[in-house]
Amino acid sequence: MRIDIITVLPELLQGPLTSSIVKRAQDKNLAEIVIHSLRDYSTNKHKTVDDYAFGGGAGMVLQPQPISDCIEKLLAERKYDEIIYMTPDGEILKQTTVNALSIKKNLMILAGHYKGVDQRIRDIYVTKEISIGDYVLTGGELPAAILADAIIRLIPGVLGDETSALTDSFQDNLLSPPVYTRPEEFKGIRVPDVLLSGNHKKIEEWRDEQALKRTQQRRPDLLD
Amino acid sequence: MRIDIITVLPELLQGPLTSSIVKRAQDKNLAEIVIHSLRDYSTNKHKTVDDYAFGGGAGMVLQPQPISDCIEKLLAERKYDEIIYMTPDGEILKQTTVNALSIKKNLMILAGHYKGVDQRIRDIYVTKEISIGDYVLTGGELPAAILADAIIRLIPGVLGDETSALTDSFQDNLLSPPVYTRPEEFKGIRVPDVLLSGNHKKIEEWRDEQALKRTQQRRPDLLD
Repeated sequence: MRIDIITVLPELLQGPLTSSIVKRAQDKNLAEIVIHSLRDYSTNKHKTVDDYAFGGGAGMVLQPQPISDCIEKLLAERKYDEIIYMTPDGEILKQTTVNALSIKKNLMILAGHYKGVDQRIRDIYVTKEISIGDYVLTGGELPAAILADAIIRLIPGVLGDETSALTDSFQDNLLSPPVYTRPEEFKGIRVPDVLLSGNHKKIEEWRDEQALKRTQQRRPDLLD
Repeated sequence: MRIDIITVLPELLQGPLTSSIVKRAQDKNLAEIVIHSLRDYSTNKHKTVDDYAFGGGAGMVLQPQPISDCIEKLLAERKYDEIIYMTPDGEILKQTTVNALSIKKNLMILAGHYKGVDQRIRDIYVTKEISIGDYVLTGGELPAAILADAIIRLIPGVLGDETSALTDSFQDNLLSPPVYTRPEEFKGIRVPDVLLSGNHKKIEEWRDEQALKRTQQRRPDLLD
């Protein structure tokens, strides 16, 4: 899979896309992430890519020309399954969307910044608008990194143990049960006996019970 | 405001917490972010901080001792308003929670990784569990960065123009209206005439209408 990310602040993506699982996926050639700096596509001498909003008001808007030039250059090179714009007014990201995107070949992700991108870019190019949640951030860079991370960890071979992703929260509409590791007793609290019993059937039953109980308590909406 | 972030992968937070608005807030002494590497608190010779889950199964669990030692060191230094654990089974982050956290003085954020932290850490120390959305990520580092970014931009003096945050999506339960900047015509699409009219009353009316229409179409749940 190839993911192209278009951003005005590429330095924000250092770290998230060069560490951990995402780095491992790239080292194994299971995923390629290419970051494009919008300033490289600015045609004015000050390399600006934003301007005031028509109609006035606070906050700058990303101009259409640099984004358009970057998108068209990429479209001329290969076919993209989706051109995704990260925006708080997009469709709320769910694990099912992540699952669906994880089997695509080429994805382009446009990160907004300031007040967002000129509406015409959305009208002309964008095929999918995604929000990571109902809160406002400085820009779409962290959301783009979140989406890339969520997708890439599902690509077969990326996670060390294939079964790990299948027991994650949400894959079965249940939250995960509590987890414990050594020592058996910590600050006076013991690990539940069943987890030390060696009885795999009972352990599975306990985990299923706990997952259901936690979901009922915390997120009954997931059970609807 | 001071935000302490505890993580097993501090390098993931380079970039997100050293660029843009978050950097500016730190440069202006409006916010201080201190990152703590869990490995510095490991007492074993290999500096490991994770171990297998009791009861078996895929995925490693973060051990209680290094986390506990780090939290207790910080608690001895100052009082914390909240000790927040980023986890997919936490309370879903909303702008109202971000607003409430933005007026606190000291926040501690614990980023999980792998299968998460030992349940006893949650039982003993954590005062608030937050999920940024219903999807699974490699770890809690990006969610911690998201939370820090959302909070810090609300601190007075951080954003260049104070009124900018108030016109964001969600602050009034409406999505933002479309935004446009130069040129007036791009790829044959003209900016809506009203935005060029100079009539501020009409512009405000148009924006309110568009915000409402977009919210009705995309997120009718916000209007309930």
